[in-house]
Amino acid sequence: MRPSLRRRVHEIVEVGGDNDRTSRLFDVALITLIFLNVTALVLETVHSLYVQAPVAFDVFEASSVMVFTLEYAFRIWSCVEDPRYAHPVWGRLRFAMTPMAFVDLIAILPFYLIFLGADLRFARSFRLLRLLRVAKLTRYVEALESIKRALASRSGELVITIAVIGLLLVGAAGMMFFVEHKAQPEAFSSIPAAMWWAVATLTTVGYGDVYPVTAWGRLLGAVIAILGVGLVALPAGIISGAFLEELQQKRRAERRSTSPPEAVCPHCGERLDRAPEDP
Amino acid sequence: MRPSLRRRVHEIVEVGGDNDRTSRLFDVALITLIFLNVTALVLETVHSLYVQAPVAFDVFEASSVMVFTLEYAFRIWSCVEDPRYAHPVWGRLRFAMTPMAFVDLIAILPFYLIFLGADLRFARSFRLLRLLRVAKLTRYVEALESIKRALASRSGELVITIAVIGLLLVGAAGMMFFVEHKAQPEAFSSIPAAMWWAVATLTTVGYGDVYPVTAWGRLLGAVIAILGVGLVALPAGIISGAFLEELQQKRRAERRSTSPPEAVCPHCGERLDRAPEDP
Amino acid sequence: MRPSLRRRVHEIVEVGGDNDRTSRLFDVALITLIFLNVTALVLETVHSLYVQAPVAFDVFEASSVMVFTLEYAFRIWSCVEDPRYAHPVWGRLRFAMTPMAFVDLIAILPFYLIFLGADLRFARSFRLLRLLRVAKLTRYVEALESIKRALASRSGELVITIAVIGLLLVGAAGMMFFVEHKAQPEAFSSIPAAMWWAVATLTTVGYGDVYPVTAWGRLLGAVIAILGVGLVALPAGIISGAFLEELQQKRRAERRSTSPPEAVCPHCGERLDRAPEDP
Amino acid sequence: MRPSLRRRVHEIVEVGGDNDRTSRLFDVALITLIFLNVTALVLETVHSLYVQAPVAFDVFEASSVMVFTLEYAFRIWSCVEDPRYAHPVWGRLRFAMTPMAFVDLIAILPFYLIFLGADLRFARSFRLLRLLRVAKLTRYVEALESIKRALASRSGELVITIAVIGLLLVGAAGMMFFVEHKAQPEAFSSIPAAMWWAVATLTTVGYGDVYPVTAWGRLLGAVIAILGVGLVALPAGIISGAFLEELQQKRRAERRSTSPPEAVCPHCGERLDRAPEDP
Repeated sequence: MRPSLRRRVHEIVEVGGDNDRTSRLFDVALITLIFLNVTALVLETVHSLYVQAPVAFDVFEASSVMVFTLEYAFRIWSCVEDPRYAHPVWGRLRFAMTPMAFVDLIAILPFYLIFLGADLRFARSFRLLRLLRVAKLTRYVEALESIKRALASRSGELVITIAVIGLLLVGAAGMMFFVEHKAQPEAFSSIPAAMWWAVATLTTVGYGDVYPVTAWGRLLGAVIAILGVGLVALPAGIISGAFLEELQQKRRAERRSTSPPEAVCPHCGERLDRAPEDP
Repeated sequence: MRPSLRRRVHEIVEVGGDNDRTSRLFDVALITLIFLNVTALVLETVHSLYVQAPVAFDVFEASSVMVFTLEYAFRIWSCVEDPRYAHPVWGRLRFAMTPMAFVDLIAILPFYLIFLGADLRFARSFRLLRLLRVAKLTRYVEALESIKRALASRSGELVITIAVIGLLLVGAAGMMFFVEHKAQPEAFSSIPAAMWWAVATLTTVGYGDVYPVTAWGRLLGAVIAILGVGLVALPAGIISGAFLEELQQKRRAERRSTSPPEAVCPHCGERLDRAPEDP
Repeated sequence: MRPSLRRRVHEIVEVGGDNDRTSRLFDVALITLIFLNVTALVLETVHSLYVQAPVAFDVFEASSVMVFTLEYAFRIWSCVEDPRYAHPVWGRLRFAMTPMAFVDLIAILPFYLIFLGADLRFARSFRLLRLLRVAKLTRYVEALESIKRALASRSGELVITIAVIGLLLVGAAGMMFFVEHKAQPEAFSSIPAAMWWAVATLTTVGYGDVYPVTAWGRLLGAVIAILGVGLVALPAGIISGAFLEELQQKRRAERRSTSPPEAVCPHCGERLDRAPEDP
Repeated sequence: MRPSLRRRVHEIVEVGGDNDRTSRLFDVALITLIFLNVTALVLETVHSLYVQAPVAFDVFEASSVMVFTLEYAFRIWSCVEDPRYAHPVWGRLRFAMTPMAFVDLIAILPFYLIFLGADLRFARSFRLLRLLRVAKLTRYVEALESIKRALASRSGELVITIAVIGLLLVGAAGMMFFVEHKAQPEAFSSIPAAMWWAVATLTTVGYGDVYPVTAWGRLLGAVIAILGVGLVALPAGIISGAFLEELQQKRRAERRSTSPPEAVCPHCGERLDRAPEDP
């Protein structure tokens, strides 16, 4: 009976068919726990909140980690049901090395390292990684799929846009450094420092902690700010084009499947999509 | 004669057919009053303006509330004409619990509570709710309908975008908290505090009251600012796609409704999508 | 000979056919002078530049005004050639009251008022109005037409967007005023003052001179900043849809004019766009 | 044998056919060196990094320049293989005057001028120009081509947008100068100074170093900030329309090339757009 139990556990923690209610429930429960856990982490950092109930926060974290540890154990144990990780030792090791499994380990490991003298803060910062597990939700959300497809269909253009942003950042920061360094040796102390200004300007964030003060610096800054508007416009244009393209493809596919017999030759009446017989 | 008067009142304050001039006039008058009332509220908060004519402001508010109270009473009285709220007691109660009726009550109630010792400021802040009643205008504005339809057709993608923004906010704030907390224990005192920075950055608002100062913090901040550009681009792309889709659907509907006889030949009466029989 | 000279002057200063080289030359010369004049105005305000050659600036302004005055006189004199302003007195008066003619008068009048004791600064500020005359250029620029058509085709949606922005501004400012007034009585002294914050936030400009500091204020500010992203996205989506629509209409018009004889009934062979004869 | 060697060198450093592996390798090596060199330049400006290994930085720069000089010499020497620059003296001179060759010279020349007493900083700032050579990469990137075509197809609209931005900048700065100059004679000292504010506002960067403080100034600033949102939306709309148009043209071209026999019936050979003759 053991292998069949393992298969069932595997189905619940990993694959989860559409009609498998237990698997869905498990997903919902786990994701709820992740959300609660991250919320607790967020609130815990507010000192005035933490001191009101330090034990409650700590107990909740400890019990969450226990659940996550159990789940991790179940997944490692049952992963051999997947043909890709069938080998009891190497298969499990390779499964543990997949990004999602590795993230899960890293998200719980620091908790145990505290007992070995690790820094509490260090452990806490890794708890944020649990947010990555929300990615599991994606299989329930169809709209996310269409966004992902649209972005994927234009990945080339988007990568180029990022590369152009990168070049512009270096170029803008370099120029600004040479123009403003003398007037503001602190704010524009180096090209990497100037890149902080360039990012704030090209993305139109504009914190205002650093900005050019010389006439030439402001002229250069103005040109780069206007280029920044274009940089916001470019990905917007690319993405909206991608969304529309996907839409039209879907509609064309629909049209093809619903109205095939339209094509008939008006002269001989034969259907045009059939090959002519040999004479 | 009473029911027929009640029906007429109901028509005027609620339904309002397209050719019902009295109902339209009532709407216009009421919305004008709402606008004037909100304008008065806005100007009243400018102390130098208020002290010039405190009585005028107070009298105007009191008379507005009287009109709004009368209108509210008329609506409660006549709502039983609507089959959904036909019962004289329970129907009226259920009507009073609908969002729009509830808002109307809340917008006038505080005025009366002042006489019972309520805080004036408390009463004033609820007057803003009257702005919500401008929603009544929507039925006269066709362009608003097309915007609403376009947004509704992509509500899935837009909700996802908001969810992704939410996750990014928590993730960015969490990471920035762990990176910058030591250098700026005041500005990045907790993850919720860091979220204030994250919102300002991801939306490219960039107030500049909080910003990273360490090298790692700036690197992280730069990456998040560039992601922010994408976050501005994503909804723009989604919405423009939606607008275009709606447009194309409208045109297809027009084509179908204006050219139905295309499917039949006006000369021989045969359907054009059927193959001609063998001669 | 006088009327024919007046007609020629009218053609040169107003209508300007496509092949009328003199009229074009006149336009180019005048617009060049306007650009130079505005440039001079811009540079003049830099005190260190003005003191270097005050006479040159003043003489250039005086001679520009002379040319603009002459042009204005020619336009008033010759406008009676236009049938709409044919009456020698009333026609000319009505012409002088058209927006463009009125702007031209206002742009030169202050110069003469200085001799009557008017403030120099007052006169200078009106010189900016000359920029409006660049609008004359539009008839040479075809791309501007397509932008204008695209914007006009969606004017309804764009007006709605502006109205929604207006409502959001008032609502956001009102709420923020009630939330932040106590903590920052200076920055959020009144709702109009809070609107300055709301504009900076909703447009994602974010100067950072005013921002919420209380927890509730920041939560509200965060929600409004995220709505601001949508407000940037909405007009972008509307406009891109409009551009695409215009494009498709142009293409459909092309297709119609090039391939008319496609519609033939396959059963009887008659053209489908011809009416069937009476039986 | 000399000319054939020169031709090979020319192929490697300039033309580079798709299957010419040596030429590709040369491109990759050179661009890697350019990236490393620019990275070194960026890091060099961080004083704390430079002082750790000044010799390493200087030696790397010297050897890079040596490689760039050699490459420049090879390109000048072999350029006569190109029919356009065939003349041994004038052809080479004209080649040296082409923008890309000129930039290459300027990027290495300052290094040698240091020995003649030139300023080190002066030499360094010209090293940034090497980034321009990354443009060579473009021929390997297809997605860049589609971005360039999309932008080129709407160059008219984009130029207009930039011109409108320019006019708005001058107009906004001029008005703000006259409104705010008295209240803030430092920040709004002249129209060019006010343009710095106008750029930050219209691009929605909003540094917050300059902003209006008077009531009229804030009203004007609010209007201009809202116009700025439109200015961000306009190019986004134009670009997304362009991307979609390009996509549709590509698809139509595909359809035409894959389905040409549609115009003729494969059974009877009659053209399908001609009416069948009477039986």
